[in-house]
Amino acid sequence: MPRHKPHALTFDVFGTVVDWRTPVIREGEILTRSRKAPEVDWERFADSWRAGYPVAMDRVRKGEIPWTNLDALHRQILNGLLPEFGIHGLTEADLDHLNRVWHRLDPWPDSVEGLERLRRRFTVATLSNGNVSLLVELSKHGGLTWDCVLSAELARHYKPDREVYEMAASYLGLEPRQVMMVAAHKKDLLAAQSVGFQTAYVHRPGEKGPYGKEEGGGNFDVSAHDFLDLAAKLG
Amino acid sequence: MPRHKPHALTFDVFGTVVDWRTPVIREGEILTRSRKAPEVDWERFADSWRAGYPVAMDRVRKGEIPWTNLDALHRQILNGLLPEFGIHGLTEADLDHLNRVWHRLDPWPDSVEGLERLRRRFTVATLSNGNVSLLVELSKHGGLTWDCVLSAELARHYKPDREVYEMAASYLGLEPRQVMMVAAHKKDLLAAQSVGFQTAYVHRPGEKGPYGKEEGGGNFDVSAHDFLDLAAKLG
Repeated sequence: MPRHKPHALTFDVFGTVVDWRTPVIREGEILTRSRKAPEVDWERFADSWRAGYPVAMDRVRKGEIPWTNLDALHRQILNGLLPEFGIHGLTEADLDHLNRVWHRLDPWPDSVEGLERLRRRFTVATLSNGNVSLLVELSKHGGLTWDCVLSAELARHYKPDREVYEMAASYLGLEPRQVMMVAAHKKDLLAAQSVGFQTAYVHRPGEKGPYGKEEGGGNFDVSAHDFLDLAAKLG
Repeated sequence: MPRHKPHALTFDVFGTVVDWRTPVIREGEILTRSRKAPEVDWERFADSWRAGYPVAMDRVRKGEIPWTNLDALHRQILNGLLPEFGIHGLTEADLDHLNRVWHRLDPWPDSVEGLERLRRRFTVATLSNGNVSLLVELSKHGGLTWDCVLSAELARHYKPDREVYEMAASYLGLEPRQVMMVAAHKKDLLAAQSVGFQTAYVHRPGEKGPYGKEEGGGNFDVSAHDFLDLAAKLG
């Protein structure tokens, strides 16, 4: 049990609530099968797309480029990957559809039920770098229900900037200590902790694929195997 | 049926989704019975509290006072009503609890089921002058589920300022014509229409009490008796 019962839980989404890697690979394979794309190492493609994300965000965080939402950053990274992977000739509609694979990611097997249980006792919100429309479509796609969709877009800052966590507590009408950040990523939790949030680390060993390294826990209020375990541990 | 199927529906909340008048009167009567307040005409009190709301908002809209959220405006109005109604001696905790009656309003009888039905086919969001935390608590209280909680607070403008509707379409990633504003109030719908939203008028004859006048419809895309009727009319 944590020090004191939080009033709200805010969730990182990519990797924590949904699996991004499997769906990106799957949709790439569909492009190959439909002959819109050549044979591509879609696992490496997915990992490269994801690896471009912190780099692109940091350009926004450092003020090198003006505020750009995640859909637009994903598209910029995708545009760079196409020649690298020898993918040519996709129409604008194909590219837009591919870029929106991030709106069609699948929840981890425990996510829907775990969130439902948690939602009976807590206010349950997203707190993701994904833009609002991405989070809304992703949630409808996966059958995820939130009390509130909070996004870095509302603060025009990306996590781990403190403004994102402060924005969330403020809109929820709570003190930071009344909010618990839930994530599979240490960096996110450490930043939330530095603002005064409680923290819950959730293991997602599958996030980075069979050879990916899990980040491992740290000095957090709760550590859970999945959302069902988290619900049990929060009583 | 409207001109073309909207992608998202945005809902006015006070009066349209929930009944504000009955719960405010009821909680006032509880104060009288517990002897924390004298005999008060709680109907007139409720109507006066509500009547203060557009006046207070207009001060923000005209820039006479800086951005102030609805909880704080409600409290300012309440502070003014107490001496007028001869209510003295409430503690700060009592006053805060009373002010938060707006977080404990009850849905109209068709609201929960109507929204559930609509949510199967559309993205369903609030678009209210209530602050985010108010809308979140109100929704949990009443069992209302949204795909997204959008509030004037996110635009730091109050409806009917166009910035509020533009903010909603933008965060939903939609063109204004893909969004339908749903409200029991003409002013709200006319403002949404002027930004390019589709509009649905919902009759809520009980909103202003037995002697209150309903606003009446206008030239809107849909006119419905309640949310079940709205769901039927939107196919």
